[in-house]
Amino acid sequence: MSLFELQIDAQDGAARATTFETAHGTVQTPLFMPVGTHATVKGITPEVLAEIGAQIVLANTYHLYMRPGTDVLQEAGGVHEFMNYHGPMLTDSGGFQLFSLEHMMKPGDDGVSFQARDYDGSKHHWTPEDNMRIQEEIGADIVMQLDQCVGYPAERASVEASTKLSWEWGERCLRSHQREDQALFGIVQGGMHLDLRLESIRQLRAAEDRNLAAGGRRFDGFGIGGYSVGEPHELMFETLPAVCEAMPQDRPRYLMGVGNPTTLVRAVAAGVDMFDCVLPTRTGRMGTAFSSTGRMNLSNAKYTHDHGPLDSQCSCSVCQNYSRAYLRHLVKQGEMLGGILLSQHNLFYLLNLMRQARAAILEGSFDAFYEEWMASPAANDY
Amino acid sequence: MSLFELQIDAQDGAARATTFETAHGTVQTPLFMPVGTHATVKGITPEVLAEIGAQIVLANTYHLYMRPGTDVLQEAGGVHEFMNYHGPMLTDSGGFQLFSLEHMMKPGDDGVSFQARDYDGSKHHWTPEDNMRIQEEIGADIVMQLDQCVGYPAERASVEASTKLSWEWGERCLRSHQREDQALFGIVQGGMHLDLRLESIRQLRAAEDRNLAAGGRRFDGFGIGGYSVGEPHELMFETLPAVCEAMPQDRPRYLMGVGNPTTLVRAVAAGVDMFDCVLPTRTGRMGTAFSSTGRMNLSNAKYTHDHGPLDSQCSCSVCQNYSRAYLRHLVKQGEMLGGILLSQHNLFYLLNLMRQARAAILEGSFDAFYEEWMASPAANDY
Repeated sequence: MSLFELQIDAQDGAARATTFETAHGTVQTPLFMPVGTHATVKGITPEVLAEIGAQIVLANTYHLYMRPGTDVLQEAGGVHEFMNYHGPMLTDSGGFQLFSLEHMMKPGDDGVSFQARDYDGSKHHWTPEDNMRIQEEIGADIVMQLDQCVGYPAERASVEASTKLSWEWGERCLRSHQREDQALFGIVQGGMHLDLRLESIRQLRAAEDRNLAAGGRRFDGFGIGGYSVGEPHELMFETLPAVCEAMPQDRPRYLMGVGNPTTLVRAVAAGVDMFDCVLPTRTGRMGTAFSSTGRMNLSNAKYTHDHGPLDSQCSCSVCQNYSRAYLRHLVKQGEMLGGILLSQHNLFYLLNLMRQARAAILEGSFDAFYEEWMASPAANDY
Repeated sequence: MSLFELQIDAQDGAARATTFETAHGTVQTPLFMPVGTHATVKGITPEVLAEIGAQIVLANTYHLYMRPGTDVLQEAGGVHEFMNYHGPMLTDSGGFQLFSLEHMMKPGDDGVSFQARDYDGSKHHWTPEDNMRIQEEIGADIVMQLDQCVGYPAERASVEASTKLSWEWGERCLRSHQREDQALFGIVQGGMHLDLRLESIRQLRAAEDRNLAAGGRRFDGFGIGGYSVGEPHELMFETLPAVCEAMPQDRPRYLMGVGNPTTLVRAVAAGVDMFDCVLPTRTGRMGTAFSSTGRMNLSNAKYTHDHGPLDSQCSCSVCQNYSRAYLRHLVKQGEMLGGILLSQHNLFYLLNLMRQARAAILEGSFDAFYEEWMASPAANDY
């Protein structure tokens, strides 16, 4: 199997189990990617990432560009060496960060001007080509095109403009990206408008056809951006199945920034392969755990004398070794170990949920898995 | 070898290498004890404690009594089970905490009254007997007598009074302590006054003679308290060698709250066997690392492009796997992993220093080890 070539191991309804190779190892979908924005998954060592079965770790181009800077990453031999994580990695382009810090952003046809007010206030301009060069320097295994994303609600005209800009930037990224050991993913935008989403997909495919005709490359996969930006939860599912159906079968589909367990299960049913979200580590640091009975807030006094495991249905080492009473004590005391262990459990929980989904798809029993999930107490956990 | 019986493996000058058994395993001295005040060594998992070779973990009676409370610890089957650490543990009596929060403390002949203003403001009274019962409930392998400690500088009369109170409380602890699987250590006080220190030792020994004559137990070891309370560094070394010399040969000697590398080396030379201090984890969380060239502040810009190991002389996994540039990046970003990894390295550094001291004593080359240390750049690190 050549690098990034998608093997479809099984399909069950729209849900898919796939495998592809990266320069740092093989990955199997559906999968969840722990987020290591600043070249570290907060509170989690690479040893623990291996233990819990993380397949791809995500980092962020905007943040790494600001600190430590691509010069430092290049000196180190790339982001993997820098952070001592030797498995597959993905960098988001930073487009979302520039959008979510909207006051800093001035997008134009030729790229985006921004002021890094969350760092040193310095001013920068990125063309799509600059962004590709930066991601090549960072050196992840999968890089995302530079895109523009609008929030919700938004005027249709504004969504149209950013969607068009995104596919144009996608084509420029496709033309300028050089590293053959890196996959490049285009990003489907279009907000909550199905017609714009479908047009986005058509335009990205037309761009890759042009690039292929010119002897260039195609996209190795596609992100689905612009969801989970403040809209009501159900709104995404009104369009997501049709969006997935219109996307190429032979490339991985990555729903960006989505991390709620039930949303993952439903999106897998719609045909999504990959996910990322800060939710498991962020909520873990705040003392909250995912569990088979729904979300648990460990600062709750009812756990003071509860010496049972965090989640009796979970096989992670935190659930094997620590009690609710101890985890509550750590959370109550503000001890670092509380956030560390809950982050580890929460990551395992989502990684394992996707492993279970994969096993069900391979067995042809995804429907039963889905129904069982949706009937479980954990499904109410949005 | 019966429980807590001290085997002197070698002596080199006043420096000793010893071995003793606890109910949770064998320990070898000289040794440094990582501090886990609230039943967690900050940011460090039990797996890492095993990896770095921690022999005894210290917890604190006052803090555990306040939270989670001894009821919770007893339900869990003791502090080891509660925190999932199955090696030897020691609890300090809490006397030092009540002293260091002096405004809260009202010592009297019958014990100490205090208000837990750092928790819920509740009022408590501990007799020495209460303190023993609490430490039995917590369930560490080594417990310390309740003592009273004064700061520096202090009126001689005040040091005299607290020293006398401490040996009286020591005798009451000796009489009331019941658990045969727990070692009980007396605590030598006396401030900076050698005559008071020697009197403290005589009185503690007289107390144990009386207790033995009554069919009771002796102390299984002795703490040396009341140093490192604000006095100039050299002042301790004016009396420490004579204090050690006057202490029983056949019991471990534990210099409480001391954790500076050079102080450890010098105190081993004076005849001390055991140490504890929050320094390695506290400074680690603040971005500072011990090293063979002295203390390093990783927030210093000079490490930005320094891709070498933290300490090229150190064999710990942090120094094997991470660069100064990465650790600086983590510290600069305020990432949890920075504090975690620097704490781990700093603990390894002190644990390893004591392993090296032990090896030198066993070889009869402690003088050379000592001279080499004192001539090294690390020796200036106070």
